[in-house]
Amino acid sequence: MLMTKIIALETYDVRFPTSRELDGSDAMNPDPDYSAAYVVLRTNAPHTDGQDALAGYGLAFTIGRGNEVQAAAIEALRPFVVGLELAAVTGDLGGFARRLVGDSQFRWLGPEKGVMHMAIGAVINAAWDMAARQAGKPLWRFIADLSSEAIADTIDFRYLSDALTRDEALALLRAAEPHKQARIAQLLAEGYPAYTTSPGWLGYSDEKLQRLAREAVADGFRTIKLKVGLNVEDDVRRCGLARAAVGPDVALAIDANQRWDVQPAIDWLRRLDAFDIAWIEEPTSPDDVLGHAAIRRGVAPMPVSTGEHTQNRVIFKQLFQAQAVDLIQIDAARVGGVNENLAILLLAAKFGVRVFPHAGGVGLCELVQHLAMADFVAISGCKEDRAIEFVDHLHEHFVHPVQIRDGRYIAPTQPGFSAQMHELSVRDYLFPGGRVWKTLAQGDLQPAASHG
Amino acid sequence: MLMTKIIALETYDVRFPTSRELDGSDAMNPDPDYSAAYVVLRTNAPHTDGQDALAGYGLAFTIGRGNEVQAAAIEALRPFVVGLELAAVTGDLGGFARRLVGDSQFRWLGPEKGVMHMAIGAVINAAWDMAARQAGKPLWRFIADLSSEAIADTIDFRYLSDALTRDEALALLRAAEPHKQARIAQLLAEGYPAYTTSPGWLGYSDEKLQRLAREAVADGFRTIKLKVGLNVEDDVRRCGLARAAVGPDVALAIDANQRWDVQPAIDWLRRLDAFDIAWIEEPTSPDDVLGHAAIRRGVAPMPVSTGEHTQNRVIFKQLFQAQAVDLIQIDAARVGGVNENLAILLLAAKFGVRVFPHAGGVGLCELVQHLAMADFVAISGCKEDRAIEFVDHLHEHFVHPVQIRDGRYIAPTQPGFSAQMHELSVRDYLFPGGRVWKTLAQGDLQPAASHG
Repeated sequence: MLMTKIIALETYDVRFPTSRELDGSDAMNPDPDYSAAYVVLRTNAPHTDGQDALAGYGLAFTIGRGNEVQAAAIEALRPFVVGLELAAVTGDLGGFARRLVGDSQFRWLGPEKGVMHMAIGAVINAAWDMAARQAGKPLWRFIADLSSEAIADTIDFRYLSDALTRDEALALLRAAEPHKQARIAQLLAEGYPAYTTSPGWLGYSDEKLQRLAREAVADGFRTIKLKVGLNVEDDVRRCGLARAAVGPDVALAIDANQRWDVQPAIDWLRRLDAFDIAWIEEPTSPDDVLGHAAIRRGVAPMPVSTGEHTQNRVIFKQLFQAQAVDLIQIDAARVGGVNENLAILLLAAKFGVRVFPHAGGVGLCELVQHLAMADFVAISGCKEDRAIEFVDHLHEHFVHPVQIRDGRYIAPTQPGFSAQMHELSVRDYLFPGGRVWKTLAQGDLQPAASHG
Repeated sequence: MLMTKIIALETYDVRFPTSRELDGSDAMNPDPDYSAAYVVLRTNAPHTDGQDALAGYGLAFTIGRGNEVQAAAIEALRPFVVGLELAAVTGDLGGFARRLVGDSQFRWLGPEKGVMHMAIGAVINAAWDMAARQAGKPLWRFIADLSSEAIADTIDFRYLSDALTRDEALALLRAAEPHKQARIAQLLAEGYPAYTTSPGWLGYSDEKLQRLAREAVADGFRTIKLKVGLNVEDDVRRCGLARAAVGPDVALAIDANQRWDVQPAIDWLRRLDAFDIAWIEEPTSPDDVLGHAAIRRGVAPMPVSTGEHTQNRVIFKQLFQAQAVDLIQIDAARVGGVNENLAILLLAAKFGVRVFPHAGGVGLCELVQHLAMADFVAISGCKEDRAIEFVDHLHEHFVHPVQIRDGRYIAPTQPGFSAQMHELSVRDYLFPGGRVWKTLAQGDLQPAASHG
C-alpha cells in the first residue's frame, strides 16, 4: 500500500487591490492592498472528485508590498516539509511545529517574529488543516476532540514556565473536559458572537459611518469598532455620532493601530471618556508591554487591548504578567500557527483575560473562528463575554466562507481550517501576472468583478 | 552638470561554510553557516581608479538557511532607493530611514522586527556608508563631526518619549560636545578595548579552550567570553578551566544564547557564582524583558545582559525601564541601521547602562566598531569601562578589515562604514552558484582557501 506523503509545497503571491476603495484604511495603514502569501501542501493520496482531499491550505496575511518576501519565506521551508509522511506530520503536530520554529538557522531571522515566523505559522496551519481534513472534522472540532494531553503535546512551553507550566495547562484543559459535549451542542445551536469593524474605517464619511453603524445593529451585532488616531477632534465627533447611532446598549470599541506614544495616548483617550468605550485597541507599539501597562493605569477604567501584531507567546505572557491589558486580540496568521495560539489562549485563560480575535483582512475571519470556538469548547468555556471581529470583505474568494447570522458566526461543519481559496481567485489575483493585476496595469483602474 | 543619483540596488546571497569547522557553535546554534545578505547601492558618479567611489555597502548577517529570504527582503526595497538623488539621501539620513521604516505596507511584516527590519537596516547602513564616503571620513568620525541637532534629526523618537525625548537626547549630545576633539585624538592614539569570544565555542575541547584563553590574555585581551548552556556540569568545569587559565584579573563573561526559562536560568547560574562572572549574556528569550528582570534579581550580583537579538529600540527602552539588565549588546545589522542604534546608545547613556557591542559573524566587527567609537566621542564619553566583541574570523573577505592590536580595536581611518567585501569573495561564496559552493556540492568537503 502506498504511504501518503507530502509531495509539494506551493506558494502564491495573491493580492487584492483594496487600496482603491479605502476599505481597511486606518491611522497607520492609509492604503492597504489586502494580500495573502498562500501555501498549499499537496499529497500523493488518491484524488476524490478530482481533488486532493487531504491537501493542506494556509496563508500569511500582508497588506501589499513585501507579500513576495513573505512567499519567499514560505518557499524556504519546502525542504522541511516535502517528502514527509503525512501521518508523521498529522500524528505529531507538536513535533512538526517545534522542528520548524526551532531550526537554529531560521531562528536567527527572528527569533519567533516577523516574516519568518509568519511563514512558519502558515505552514503549521496548513498541516493542521490536513490533520482536520484527514479526521473529517472542522478544525475547531478536531481540536476539541483531542485529549487534554494531546493538546498539551502540541504546545512549546519554552519561555513560558514562569507563567504557565505544562501541568498548569493540563489542569486548565482537564477542568474544561466534563462539559465539552454540551458546549459543542451549544455552539452548533447558537453560534459565536461577532463584532464588526465595517462602519469604522477612517476613510468613510460621517454619514456612511452612521448609516453602517445603524445597519450593523439591525444586523444583530452587539459591538462595533471605530478606527481612531488621526485627529482628536474628529475622533470626539465620530465617537459621538457612532454612540448616537447605536444607542447606549451596544458596545463601542476603538482602535488606534499603534498610533501614539504613552502620554499622548493617555491625553487623547481621556477626551473620549464620555462615550463608554468598550476597549481601546493598539494604543501604541505592539512591542511596548510596559507602555500598555502605563496607558492602562492612565486611562482606567477604559479597558486596554492589543494583540493583532503581538509577535509571539513571550510578549503575550508579559502583557499578562504586567497587567498591561484588560483583553487581547489573537491573530490566526501572525504567530507560529495553531500551536502557539493554543498556548496564548491557555495563558489568557489562566490570567482571566478575555479574547476578542482579530479578523478581517484576507481569510483571517475564516481561520480565527476555529480558534475561538476551540477555546470555548476546550479551554476557557466562555463565549458570550467575547466576540470575533467580522469584516464583510473578500470572503467570496474562499471555498468555505464564514457564515454570519444575526451578528454571530455559525460554527463551520466542513472538514478543515477553511483557508482554501478558489483556484480561479488565486489565478486572477496572482501578483503581478494575474488577470486583475494585468488589467490594472493597463490603466483600467476598475478591477473586474471578483469571483463567487 | 549631471546630478549624482543612486542607479542600482544589488543584493548578493553570500554564505561561508563555517558549520564544517564548529567555529561559532553555541547552545542554540550548533551548526551555523555564517552568511550575509549583502547590498550594494551604485551611483552614476564618475569612477575613480575604475571604482564607484560613492557606492554604498551594507549587509544583514544570518547563519545560513533563509539568507535568500533576507536578500529578497532587501530587493523589495529597490523602488524606494533607485532613482533617488544622492544628496537627498545623504543630506537627510533621518528622513530616508523614516520613509523605509514607516512604510505602512512593509511595516505590517514586522513592525520594526525580523527579516524586513534587518533588510531596512542593511539599506540604511549602506546609505550612511555613502554619506561617510562622500565626506571622506570613516563613519565613526562622520557621526562625531555632525552637530548635536543633526544627530538628533536622524533619530525616530516614536515610542520613546516616555523614556527619552528629543530634548533629553539633545542635552546628552550637547554635554558631550566640549571634549569631542580631545576624545577623537585619544581614540586615534589608544584604540578601543576589545574582548574575545574565540576561546569559548562549545565545540572546542577543554585543552583548546585553555590554550586559546591563555593566548587571548597574551594577545592583550582583558575580557574573554565562554558559551554556556548545554550541560551545567560542563559549564562548571569549563568556567573553572577558563578562570584558571586567565587568572583572577581578566574578566570572564558567559553567553547562554537564549537557552533557558527564567527559574532554570537562575538555578544554573548560581552554580557559576564562584568564577566571578563579568556578565551572563542572553540567559533567555530576547523578547522577555520581565524575564530578564526576574533573572537579574535572582542572580544578583552577577550582571545580566542581552541585546544581539533585541529587535528594536522599543524593547531596549523597556529593558532599561524595568531595570532588567546591567549592560547591553548592540548589533550593527539587527535593528534599523545607524539611526536606531544611535537611539539605543542615547537610551543607554541616559540610563547609565554600559554597552558591549556584539560582533563576530560576517562583517559585524567591521560595522559595529564605528558605532562604539561614535558613542565614545559624541555620546557617552566612555570607553575603558566597556569593550567590543572580537572574533578573528572572515575578516579577510573585507576590503578594510578591522585591525586589532594589544587587545584593542584600532580606529579605522578609511572613508565609510567598512562593510565593503572583496568582489572575489562575493563571487566565490555566492550561494549556491559560487565556486566554493559548487566545489562543496561536488563532494569535496574541504572549501578552497579563502581570499586575502
